[in-house]
Amino acid sequence: MTFHYPNGKKFIPAANKEALLKGKKRKNAAYSNRGMTLEADLNETNSFYLDRNIAVIHKKPTPLQIVQVDYPQRSAAVIKEAYFKQASTTDYNGVYKGKYIDFEAKETKFSTSFPLKNFHEHQIVHMKSVLDQGGICFVILRFSTEEEIYLLEASHLLAFWNRMTKGGRKSITKAEVMDCGHKIPLGLHPRIDYIKVIDYLYKLS
Amino acid sequence: MTFHYPNGKKFIPAANKEALLKGKKRKNAAYSNRGMTLEADLNETNSFYLDRNIAVIHKKPTPLQIVQVDYPQRSAAVIKEAYFKQASTTDYNGVYKGKYIDFEAKETKFSTSFPLKNFHEHQIVHMKSVLDQGGICFVILRFSTEEEIYLLEASHLLAFWNRMTKGGRKSITKAEVMDCGHKIPLGLHPRIDYIKVIDYLYKLS
Repeated sequence: MTFHYPNGKKFIPAANKEALLKGKKRKNAAYSNRGMTLEADLNETNSFYLDRNIAVIHKKPTPLQIVQVDYPQRSAAVIKEAYFKQASTTDYNGVYKGKYIDFEAKETKFSTSFPLKNFHEHQIVHMKSVLDQGGICFVILRFSTEEEIYLLEASHLLAFWNRMTKGGRKSITKAEVMDCGHKIPLGLHPRIDYIKVIDYLYKLS
Repeated sequence: MTFHYPNGKKFIPAANKEALLKGKKRKNAAYSNRGMTLEADLNETNSFYLDRNIAVIHKKPTPLQIVQVDYPQRSAAVIKEAYFKQASTTDYNGVYKGKYIDFEAKETKFSTSFPLKNFHEHQIVHMKSVLDQGGICFVILRFSTEEEIYLLEASHLLAFWNRMTKGGRKSITKAEVMDCGHKIPLGLHPRIDYIKVIDYLYKLS
């Protein structure tokens, strides 16, 4: 099975395109589109912050293992073989009022809990390192069926992760997310105004 | 011309491999190796900092434009066509004592000046945004012939860039780098102990 988008066939913003290309084994197009929404909404939000000098936060490029590159005469190098690598950090980071900001964004179709398998062990290790270093670290969780978005501080996520490693449940219940996290209302511009929660939590404004 | 590294043929650390694959039009292998050194040395330094809880600083993955992906049955997705994209930010960022750290690393073969064409306009814009947001931003400059490494704060780089845009010289003289920058002695472990300069400049320790 090959997806190929001929030049000029259909415009897909670069960020969405990458999300689409990565959304490989998703059979359901609607679900795949949902997968794009969170990333696209956060990209829009980060652009909004950047344009207004509110914060400088970017999504990191997707890490790839490059195996083969061709160098055609008089044209750009073409990568002919590469593989998606697992990220060793979180996807988003940057600076807000001098403070280091670091977060990961994930979503679930489930309505009653958020599965912890959405995170990798090394991402959890990274979040702990960031907290130890005095950075501001959190996750943005989206319940796609209800279109609800929460900011959950990494300290809480680490506690739920620890509960799992001690034999506890492999997810965070929706009630726990609502209790420990902070709901972010979906806006028009910016779409996911998470900096307001950071202001509230860290008294930065 | 195609470079292809068959599996298991020769071990090249991932970071170096990427640098090698990107170092396309360099005919001279020795020069290409030099190009790898700065990145490899900084990766070693960042690992050293991470392992000892000194700082959490990572190199961002190389941004690629993915065009075509194959999904073979029962195996990992293979990227069959992708291109190197110009980075819109700097290569390295992270957190040190709660502060946001952001830098770019470049080197030159020249002995008497550092050409400003090593930086892209959008990287300069990014550095300015980071400074405006209260982040710590700098460049690490390596004079490869002399094996000398300097940390130059972004505020100085921006001043030299402005001089160029007003019709001034297209490089920073070595004397200016020595005057405005801070020499980092090459060490064994870590190789480029730039955090010491940050401690000195920002009184963080």
